[in-house]
Amino acid sequence: MPETHSAWYFAERPQGEPDLDCFDLREEERPSPNPGELLVEVQYLSVDPYMRGRMDDRESYAEPWDVGDVLKGAVVGEVVESHHHSYEEGDFVTGEGAWAEYSVLDGDDVGPVDPSIADPEAYLGVLGMPGRTAYFGLLEEGEPKPGDTVVVSGAAGAVGSVVGQIASMNGCHVVGFAGSEEKTDWLTDDLGFDAAINYKTTEDYRAALDDAAPGGVDVYFDNVGGPITDAVFTKLNLDARVAVCGQIAHYNAESVPMGPRKLPMLIAPRATVQGLLVGDYATRFGEASKQLAQWVGAGELEHRETIVEGLDRAPEAFLGLFSGDNIGKQVVQVSEPSA
Amino acid sequence: MPETHSAWYFAERPQGEPDLDCFDLREEERPSPNPGELLVEVQYLSVDPYMRGRMDDRESYAEPWDVGDVLKGAVVGEVVESHHHSYEEGDFVTGEGAWAEYSVLDGDDVGPVDPSIADPEAYLGVLGMPGRTAYFGLLEEGEPKPGDTVVVSGAAGAVGSVVGQIASMNGCHVVGFAGSEEKTDWLTDDLGFDAAINYKTTEDYRAALDDAAPGGVDVYFDNVGGPITDAVFTKLNLDARVAVCGQIAHYNAESVPMGPRKLPMLIAPRATVQGLLVGDYATRFGEASKQLAQWVGAGELEHRETIVEGLDRAPEAFLGLFSGDNIGKQVVQVSEPSA
Repeated sequence: MPETHSAWYFAERPQGEPDLDCFDLREEERPSPNPGELLVEVQYLSVDPYMRGRMDDRESYAEPWDVGDVLKGAVVGEVVESHHHSYEEGDFVTGEGAWAEYSVLDGDDVGPVDPSIADPEAYLGVLGMPGRTAYFGLLEEGEPKPGDTVVVSGAAGAVGSVVGQIASMNGCHVVGFAGSEEKTDWLTDDLGFDAAINYKTTEDYRAALDDAAPGGVDVYFDNVGGPITDAVFTKLNLDARVAVCGQIAHYNAESVPMGPRKLPMLIAPRATVQGLLVGDYATRFGEASKQLAQWVGAGELEHRETIVEGLDRAPEAFLGLFSGDNIGKQVVQVSEPSA
Repeated sequence: MPETHSAWYFAERPQGEPDLDCFDLREEERPSPNPGELLVEVQYLSVDPYMRGRMDDRESYAEPWDVGDVLKGAVVGEVVESHHHSYEEGDFVTGEGAWAEYSVLDGDDVGPVDPSIADPEAYLGVLGMPGRTAYFGLLEEGEPKPGDTVVVSGAAGAVGSVVGQIASMNGCHVVGFAGSEEKTDWLTDDLGFDAAINYKTTEDYRAALDDAAPGGVDVYFDNVGGPITDAVFTKLNLDARVAVCGQIAHYNAESVPMGPRKLPMLIAPRATVQGLLVGDYATRFGEASKQLAQWVGAGELEHRETIVEGLDRAPEAFLGLFSGDNIGKQVVQVSEPSA
């Protein structure tokens, strides 16, 4: 009798806000790797805001999920069967896999996980796609200079928390928006942000920015959109740079969201606004991974993961992203480490 | 008895749409030039959309006009009294002067007018600030490549008409939005635009763009904002560039104008949106002026001026910009050429 495992399937497309009906947990036969592939026992899987876009039947940068497909995303796990010359049983790897207990990964597309640098779950956050997004987005599109004021929305998230710290390393005055006192405390007490604004308890974001960023805003790294962004755009300095990484405030909108027109605000400061996708920097991922690992290893870059335990709770962890349940990177623990 | 002349003064700041009450025509003593200055008999004066911003008491890129000040802008005229070594009586010059019959200009800040290249009024348009704005905005911020689709709003205006022609010279597919059949005919029949959309008679701008720009939009040069811009942003190609030169649709808004949020639209195409002020290219004005004059002289760059006759009609000419009365550059003829 073949061995079975559990895997999450995409059950239906959401209208607006997704809910648990979008997901279907199935018991099925464990997958088998082909030549060049690895069978991995998934230890952690990543849930990310960008996945909301994959739930819509609309061409975009990430391929839409098809109803009936197994859900996929970044995972970390242990190789239990290798058909690739670079890996052997017992190795820890990270790559694009299934929301499942076991997943087949292409051996050419995975990366190694070095537990001497950080716990495996960090490879889904600071040492994974979110960390690289922060690295390239801030450094290449934000171009932070010493003395610049850098404002980050979603600052306590997987990307924002790294952005702020790299900005600090570059001698910037760093201000973060986050959604709880625990988060804002983390930013200022542990991550070295110069100021943090709790957007859930602050009424007047523009006034809060006048206090936190009295010299105006040179770089805005936007993960959120909505009223936070509306306020920041009124404070842009000459030659300000805005990196649009995410707009989580709008991902569940059922119609085109409306807001204050921003283009008139760009003329006087000659500001530049640029959409950001980390995949554009794929040829330089090695550079980023090396630098991020060095900073993490040296204790210069803090990171935190919010862990939801149990594959069965993966949809819940995903939905929690939209209410800001996570501090740092949201991951799902699928299995205990074998060691 | 000293000689007198007429001059326009700023009488009151508008709330929303300006009207004739904002302007006051006074008979006053003719000004006298100091050392280094020129007394110029104004032949043409320029009215420009950016002047609307100067009517508000708000710091911006152009200094606000103070109530009680004489109105100022670009003028072309004949030197009637020179206290500057570079110019003599009878020379034609262009520079920042008054909305008046006579104006004192700083000899260091004026440029020559060469009637063998074009009529003097062209020095307020294609050979003046609007032409240079088109030149640098398109080439430096739009970065048009052969085969790109370039869309221009306000395409029959002083800036837009030059943008489209330079884009054509660069091998681009050029689409313009303009507000009358006379204008769209001018764009396609005389200026070489590949397509023109009459925004006043077209109901569905997105559908019109599907026809006129079937390959999507690589460069958008925006002079207008509003619903035209909303439509263009839904058609941006990968790595699209948007130069925000003007937003005339919003200049008279009495509160912050609202519209579809555009930042979410920037992520998938990784588009870049940049505010444009020609003054940033001041050190390169010579290059632009030379190139534009060469194109005009060779008949490769068409231009047109809409002339309102009489200093007394200057406010009317200015207000007409907001209803699109002008084709090409709107100027006011203050005096007849002396020759």
